Amino acid sequence: MKFNKTLDDLKNNLKQLPGVGDKTAQRYALHLLTQSKERSLQFSDVIREAVEIHTYCARCNLLSDSDPCAICLDESRDESLICVVENSYDVYLVENTGEYKGRYFVLGHLLSPIDGIGIEEINLSHLLEVANNGLVKEIILAVNPSTEGETTMSLIAGELASTDIIVTRLSTGLPFGANIEYSSQLTLSNAIRRRYTI
Amino acid sequence: MKFNKTLDDLKNNLKQLPGVGDKTAQRYALHLLTQSKERSLQFSDVIREAVEIHTYCARCNLLSDSDPCAICLDESRDESLICVVENSYDVYLVENTGEYKGRYFVLGHLLSPIDGIGIEEINLSHLLEVANNGLVKEIILAVNPSTEGETTMSLIAGELASTDIIVTRLSTGLPFGANIEYSSQLTLSNAIRRRYTI
Repeated sequence: MKFNKTLDDLKNNLKQLPGVGDKTAQRYALHLLTQSKERSLQFSDVIREAVEIHTYCARCNLLSDSDPCAICLDESRDESLICVVENSYDVYLVENTGEYKGRYFVLGHLLSPIDGIGIEEINLSHLLEVANNGLVKEIILAVNPSTEGETTMSLIAGELASTDIIVTRLSTGLPFGANIEYSSQLTLSNAIRRRYTI
Repeated sequence: MKFNKTLDDLKNNLKQLPGVGDKTAQRYALHLLTQSKERSLQFSDVIREAVEIHTYCARCNLLSDSDPCAICLDESRDESLICVVENSYDVYLVENTGEYKGRYFVLGHLLSPIDGIGIEEINLSHLLEVANNGLVKEIILAVNPSTEGETTMSLIAGELASTDIIVTRLSTGLPFGANIEYSSQLTLSNAIRRRYTI
């Protein structure tokens, strides 16, 4: 909009957000400029504060507003379990299920040598250190069953093979609500192989 | 997320944006916290600056970063034409068509007595003042053909009936790409009445 450079700048700024295109950015921008000035300035301040406060937990690498994070500090959590995930968002997803009461470890990446992501980038030595603290009995590898995820799981399981720690992974099979007709061949053949008694 | 209050605050903050629900807000929040701190602080600053700078043009009520706005200052624009719109966003929509080279007037609202929006709220006296400056030959009422829009158009046309100013409204009919089968009865009967020779 050549007649309003500031609006244009604001729009381009909002387009940084994931999945936000031109129209959505314009809608957000006009919302911020037409609602009360006070609310919009507060909107900007909350972002600044959150960004300034946030850090990573030195023990589990979780994006957190404290170090150690609230999960690592929570003594009611089961120290014998570690759930290994790709990123901080996955921790929120697992927490939302309410199924899990152990600790976490955030890899930050999945192994992908082609993209230059090796064992340094996934914090492998840090994970092994945490795993070998004498308290851990099971490591749950909660990563995507993708090529990178499978490679990462193999590597970690291999590294822990000589220990007494049980290494598990998330169940694979048909998702609830799936239609067999539209499932991939890989998913279906895996589901047949891993069938279980009712 | 009880284990990360700052993230929660940021999420709720982002949910203020129009059409943003819980999942989208979480995605935005994690994006802002995981990209570089510098970029995210800048993101917050651009919002603050835009909000602080923005004002309304005293002549045409357009949301603008200057008063008078760039359109009112542009001497190459046709002063004999005023396009009357509901809000600032509509100005951007009309500008984007590239069809129009006159001035604007932003009402701010459409008449809706039931919601307490009367002639004061739509800046009627200001519009009449601008219209009667001796230069204006045509007023284009570019508002929605809704109940509120029709009431607003009637009122403005009535107020200007005694002047030499021509009052026009946007064409009504089938939108391009429409399917007659799915058009409302009102749209179709209006389109028949307003048919034109090819």
